[in-house]
Amino acid sequence: MEVYHLYSGGKDSSLAAYILERLGYEVKLVTVNFGVLDSWKYARETAQSLGFEHEVFFLDRKILEKATEMCINDKHPNNAIQFIHERALEEIARREDVERVSDGTRRDDRVPLLDQRKTRSLEDRFNVQYIRPLLGLGYKTIRELTDRLFIIELKESEKLEKSDYEVEIRYLLREKGIDPLTIFPKRHLQSRVLGWKKEKAHL
Amino acid sequence: MEVYHLYSGGKDSSLAAYILERLGYEVKLVTVNFGVLDSWKYARETAQSLGFEHEVFFLDRKILEKATEMCINDKHPNNAIQFIHERALEEIARREDVERVSDGTRRDDRVPLLDQRKTRSLEDRFNVQYIRPLLGLGYKTIRELTDRLFIIELKESEKLEKSDYEVEIRYLLREKGIDPLTIFPKRHLQSRVLGWKKEKAHL
Repeated sequence: MEVYHLYSGGKDSSLAAYILERLGYEVKLVTVNFGVLDSWKYARETAQSLGFEHEVFFLDRKILEKATEMCINDKHPNNAIQFIHERALEEIARREDVERVSDGTRRDDRVPLLDQRKTRSLEDRFNVQYIRPLLGLGYKTIRELTDRLFIIELKESEKLEKSDYEVEIRYLLREKGIDPLTIFPKRHLQSRVLGWKKEKAHL
Repeated sequence: MEVYHLYSGGKDSSLAAYILERLGYEVKLVTVNFGVLDSWKYARETAQSLGFEHEVFFLDRKILEKATEMCINDKHPNNAIQFIHERALEEIARREDVERVSDGTRRDDRVPLLDQRKTRSLEDRFNVQYIRPLLGLGYKTIRELTDRLFIIELKESEKLEKSDYEVEIRYLLREKGIDPLTIFPKRHLQSRVLGWKKEKAHL
């Protein structure tokens, strides 16, 4: 039972990967990148530290460019993040070898989040199972589990090495002379998973 | 990390209990009963066979009577099942010793299912975490996992020994001279979990 799991190296996608593994899935972590920055390397580091298989999946730079335009038009990143996530799921789901895709989207997320119609459409169009282990978990539950499982680094948003979609969008915005802080909400602290708190065998 | 898990002995609530245990929770199965029938005993049997702690939680018979009236007025059980499930979650959540409640509700369920507003209301009113391990899983994923984990008995709906809310509603309907088949959809086959397919240690 192989599952291809969209992975950023953050707490949510790491917890979802852990749950999938505990359920007996052979978990293959997939980090999306557009070839603009090598920001995928942080997710790879975390994946290796956690002992998961990891691949970088390069998507067409045009998707990132379109998302950046959406950010500029909307003056807000939500639609752009949703757009990239849907394309990423589709591009993985359409691969011949893929029967199951998953991600770390949560109950309390606004974006990215597929509604029922889009969820079923993804499953039907590509004949895959779409599995979201965190969808039934609230933020308190997720915090309790991740605090228990992972060594987590907290850093100021701008300084943190991350592999999420935001990093490459920010880069393209700067290239166009636009300050990302006019688009992305200011979050003082963001987190990154560094490794397991205990040896996995003892969890 | 104790969690009180609403449990019918069926595939969904058994799978959800398994996931919670794999995540490190101390799982306490709770089967709701209204004192009309001893239908809770089937859930207890399954709970024991799977090796989980189990309690029967008796709720006020008035809740069942109100649900039965709803069935009669609606000529359909959906609102009644939803009503009982919400009361069951609330009554467990309000107990002093309870910090986490859970159930086996799934992505593709219509009822019982709490929407975002009701989910947050339950958590806020009773200061609990409400955990739904199956909410991000589709029916194919659930079937694949339950087939792998459990020995399952398939029987005609009317003949199956079950512990869900429906059993006691059906009894009250018959007491009132109403044929439950005029209210509940005819399902030819229903399932019940009998035990683990392999020793748990090997899963």
